[in-house]
Amino acid sequence: MRIYYLSTNGKAAPWLAALREALPGAEVMEWQAGAPPGDHAVVWAPPQQFFDEQPQLRGIFNTGAGVDALLGRQLPPKAVLVRLEDAGMSVQMAEYVCHAVVRHFREFDRIEEDVAQRRWAYRRPNERDDFPVGVMGLGVLGTRVAQALAHFEFPVLGWSRSPREVPGVRCFSGGAGFDDFLRATRMLVCLLPLTPATENIMNRDTLGKLRPGGYVINVARGAHLVDEDLLALLDEGHLAGATLDVFRTEPLPPQHPFWQHPRISVTPHTSARTLRHETVAQIARKIQALERGESIAGVVDRLRGY
Amino acid sequence: MRIYYLSTNGKAAPWLAALREALPGAEVMEWQAGAPPGDHAVVWAPPQQFFDEQPQLRGIFNTGAGVDALLGRQLPPKAVLVRLEDAGMSVQMAEYVCHAVVRHFREFDRIEEDVAQRRWAYRRPNERDDFPVGVMGLGVLGTRVAQALAHFEFPVLGWSRSPREVPGVRCFSGGAGFDDFLRATRMLVCLLPLTPATENIMNRDTLGKLRPGGYVINVARGAHLVDEDLLALLDEGHLAGATLDVFRTEPLPPQHPFWQHPRISVTPHTSARTLRHETVAQIARKIQALERGESIAGVVDRLRGY
Repeated sequence: MRIYYLSTNGKAAPWLAALREALPGAEVMEWQAGAPPGDHAVVWAPPQQFFDEQPQLRGIFNTGAGVDALLGRQLPPKAVLVRLEDAGMSVQMAEYVCHAVVRHFREFDRIEEDVAQRRWAYRRPNERDDFPVGVMGLGVLGTRVAQALAHFEFPVLGWSRSPREVPGVRCFSGGAGFDDFLRATRMLVCLLPLTPATENIMNRDTLGKLRPGGYVINVARGAHLVDEDLLALLDEGHLAGATLDVFRTEPLPPQHPFWQHPRISVTPHTSARTLRHETVAQIARKIQALERGESIAGVVDRLRGY
Repeated sequence: MRIYYLSTNGKAAPWLAALREALPGAEVMEWQAGAPPGDHAVVWAPPQQFFDEQPQLRGIFNTGAGVDALLGRQLPPKAVLVRLEDAGMSVQMAEYVCHAVVRHFREFDRIEEDVAQRRWAYRRPNERDDFPVGVMGLGVLGTRVAQALAHFEFPVLGWSRSPREVPGVRCFSGGAGFDDFLRATRMLVCLLPLTPATENIMNRDTLGKLRPGGYVINVARGAHLVDEDLLALLDEGHLAGATLDVFRTEPLPPQHPFWQHPRISVTPHTSARTLRHETVAQIARKIQALERGESIAGVVDRLRGY
């Protein structure tokens, strides 16, 4: 069995070593043009040429949860496309989102400004019931985030394409439920997959429906958000702020207005990092299961896009 | 039944109104010198004169969890001293501590410095197993905090005077367990009651036993921490930082070195605020139970100090 590793993200050597250790019987190598036919591939954003040269591939394993970088590719006809599931990402996502929500709700950013001026200031506590958090996308990550928010006793709403039930979360679904979800939400968290149906889903119209003092947390993909609409709604005062980890162009271009906007917190796509150890272990288990003819979880429905 | 309210903290009018509404049969008033005998008192840091004039009091209800401000007082002989239990404080404490722990673990403060310079920087993720969090004090607040940290999959240790069991938390107790607890802890959270036995418990000796890169979060009382010892261990590099919400003198004096220390985050005693609605409801329930001759929870053992 031959397995190719190719990624635009970071160094190959430790990944190759980890895959070889996890799959002792396999030949694991970095792909180069003209290489012999392989069985499986472990990839992040590979070029079309790779798939053109490897039509016999049976498994394509993405090293991230979102497979949007692969949906525009012509993939080998028999290959299953497999997204990364959790692998230590959901707890990172939960702590990232809870940190952002708590920071805004408790006004820790303003307290830091007071403290920088040696001011011991009283701030009237906010009421938790005035800060309902709405999570868009109730997959593995979205569900984990919603549960962490519920643990902190925030009112939590969830929205997904098809109906879901999550304990402690008021769930909405489909186009019919979207308006009600938005109008009941003050802090909006995006954890949707990026597909043609979800691109630009956070725009003037939808963000305008959030409760006054709305807050946006985008930890999915930059293309979910219309940048200018967010800026306009912040200027108009309908939105109070945003925490953004993902952007249309990454790295975020130096001249982009998000960098130093007083009410936008930027992080460099760090909300949930791919952890090599967990990721290799999960992919190795799935390759072995496929080889035994078993079915595996996390296979992407290419029509649906996730 | 006559109930006195007296507090050095904030305005009396809304508290009097809320107590009157919750206890319609009672006469609720603010205490003044020479006032007639009362049955119960709802207090924060009252003067000794109050107790001297009211020897017949049967219940003294503290509007905070820590009763250290009352332990130096001569209290009426028949009165039970009752601390506030939870009343919306434990969830606030959990979110405060988790915010501080996650902020340090995920290096969000450093990311903010990068972003202020428009730098899209890569930071190698920390390993969660290298950041065990130790919670001192496993009462209502400490237990809630420990559980929230376990929810984020940190290794969590707990230490208390007498043995406790908390699911998901490695518990130590008493003098015999203290050293092992400290040596296994990297991020130390103090949620102890302030008593003669716990004063100055965070000092050069004990903080020196934390794992290298130790971090201190004090959300209990300022007198738990020896300020100069913390500063020395930060200077020496054994400790990486601290988040402090409580201080020996509050407000923190303008010239105090904590205000603008680059590795200390200061907040103005805001970690868990007394919420009037929840507090009044709890105290009213307990007064009614005492009047019916029932026993109540939260009665302070004055010898033990909490």
